[in-house]
Amino acid sequence: MKRVVLARYAKGNPKASDFRVEDVPPPTAGEGELLLQTLYIAVDPLIRFSLDESTVTGASRMELGAPMVGPTVSRVIASNHADYAVGDYVEGRTPWAELAVVAPDKSDYRGPPRRIDPGLAPVSTALGALGGPGQTAYEGVVNVARLKAGETIVISAAAGAVGSMAGQIAKALGARAVGIAGGAQKCQGLLELGFDAVADYKAADFADQLKAALPEGADVYFENVGGDVTLAVLPLLKRGARLPMCGFIAYYGVGMEGPGPDHLPGFYRHIMNKALEIKGFAGLFAGQKGLDDIAGWMKEGKISFAESFLDGIDAAPEAFASVFSGHDHLGKLLVRLASEA
Amino acid sequence: MKRVVLARYAKGNPKASDFRVEDVPPPTAGEGELLLQTLYIAVDPLIRFSLDESTVTGASRMELGAPMVGPTVSRVIASNHADYAVGDYVEGRTPWAELAVVAPDKSDYRGPPRRIDPGLAPVSTALGALGGPGQTAYEGVVNVARLKAGETIVISAAAGAVGSMAGQIAKALGARAVGIAGGAQKCQGLLELGFDAVADYKAADFADQLKAALPEGADVYFENVGGDVTLAVLPLLKRGARLPMCGFIAYYGVGMEGPGPDHLPGFYRHIMNKALEIKGFAGLFAGQKGLDDIAGWMKEGKISFAESFLDGIDAAPEAFASVFSGHDHLGKLLVRLASEA
Repeated sequence: MKRVVLARYAKGNPKASDFRVEDVPPPTAGEGELLLQTLYIAVDPLIRFSLDESTVTGASRMELGAPMVGPTVSRVIASNHADYAVGDYVEGRTPWAELAVVAPDKSDYRGPPRRIDPGLAPVSTALGALGGPGQTAYEGVVNVARLKAGETIVISAAAGAVGSMAGQIAKALGARAVGIAGGAQKCQGLLELGFDAVADYKAADFADQLKAALPEGADVYFENVGGDVTLAVLPLLKRGARLPMCGFIAYYGVGMEGPGPDHLPGFYRHIMNKALEIKGFAGLFAGQKGLDDIAGWMKEGKISFAESFLDGIDAAPEAFASVFSGHDHLGKLLVRLASEA
Repeated sequence: MKRVVLARYAKGNPKASDFRVEDVPPPTAGEGELLLQTLYIAVDPLIRFSLDESTVTGASRMELGAPMVGPTVSRVIASNHADYAVGDYVEGRTPWAELAVVAPDKSDYRGPPRRIDPGLAPVSTALGALGGPGQTAYEGVVNVARLKAGETIVISAAAGAVGSMAGQIAKALGARAVGIAGGAQKCQGLLELGFDAVADYKAADFADQLKAALPEGADVYFENVGGDVTLAVLPLLKRGARLPMCGFIAYYGVGMEGPGPDHLPGFYRHIMNKALEIKGFAGLFAGQKGLDDIAGWMKEGKISFAESFLDGIDAAPEAFASVFSGHDHLGKLLVRLASEA
């Protein structure tokens, strides 16, 4: 079987050549273990933090040659554990490999795999709308930002898995959603998902587009990006605006210091002048309540799931790199290893 | 009489030579007006925002040659207004001048002067513990940070008017207070005010002092400063720490961008890794409730007021500049123009 391993540590944005696809003998399930066939791999940008040669605050460093590990959806093809049957669909953290063995009771990859109901929606959505990204979007919009009907939220990386859900959740709550994304294709996709307005950060007139999309400013900025996009958003925030901080992909490869000038003084000035409220948060806090609300909105037709696929494990390195270099895919980008039928 | 006017716009930190003391004819009180004898001038760092030649977000620019205006305590020496009598003590915003005329009903300087009870405490405290700085400290510690008994708060510019009050309010609430100040003399003064531990940011071993003062980290960082002090504090914050942001004097002269490197990526990383909560706030929101609580703690002996004096209006430019360059005074720094007896 094939798997993806780390070939070299990343400098700045990861490149496909930082990884290597290799052939290894297929694993077998021992006592208490499951053998899983991987169906979908989610190229999670947070993995970037483990790819620095020198450790940086809060990150654990991967070993060179070790298999990449991240969120996946798999099918159980052999089970030596009473809670799982052959044919079950599960979501968890497993190696980027065509086959994987996990021991649910040993929590080798951060907790036992979560069983998925394939009748609810395509099982791939367990990595997007009905998984971590959906919960993260819910946590940021509902619990951290306390977004209210009639308010305006602006979302960076709005075409991403979290951003596309955040905008749809905002709409379901009766708010106005403005999305920032790169390229006309993704911006058009956001309008089709129900966003009220968009701004293309790759366009020469991005600043004007953003101002036109926010004629009265924004009450909430859902932050996924940092960098130049954020510098353009800050002047358009209303007094007392809330900033749920979900990610900062522009800085993932930068470490603690980027090239000058120092933008921290201006950031402070905005915080003070506008009494901004900023809160960093990680997903999954929304828990089952968030997933239930999202599933409910899906049934009411208020939320659709956006996902894009690349086929075959050989595509995984390029898919991961494209999350940082920018790509044209809308919603959750998944590597599809096998069909789920 | 003498008054202080703006001689040139400031570049970076203000200098005494940016101001000029000049002799002008004394004013007289017209209908509905008061003639005030200025007793104390508070050299308020926020005035810095009006001293840039080019306007910066949120600031209104002063005219060259115009008198400086800021918080003062004065005595009424002539009154043509029914609400004020000769001999009354008042706090308000008036020119840096030995005499001033104000029209309470016209709110020429942001609202009518507030009458002070000289029996409660020395009237100078209306510019410190029982005035804006006390209210600001209360707002940040009590309302924004929601500091609880048993928690640890670390305070930058702790020897200043706001910082010295923030630490004492924290102690009155049953919390542990750690102060950061410049120089052994001010640090010693903080310990005498009841701070549990201090760190001298001018000392070569500042980072070690700070770590020793925060062996278990901090739940709250009361931010007055920004810059290198903040970069030393951030790694010592606990997960979920709250940062009431009161000021950022290290950046007041910088505008939106400082010299590189860019520290915003590291700031973002701390916010995310530790789920920090940051909120910009301005003083005075604490209102009468804050002043009443502070007066009550004073009566119980839990809070004392720290103030330092420089004598004569000629000292005002140097006093203002020293707020930015650093000085050895503890608590609220006031320019004393006349005794209050």
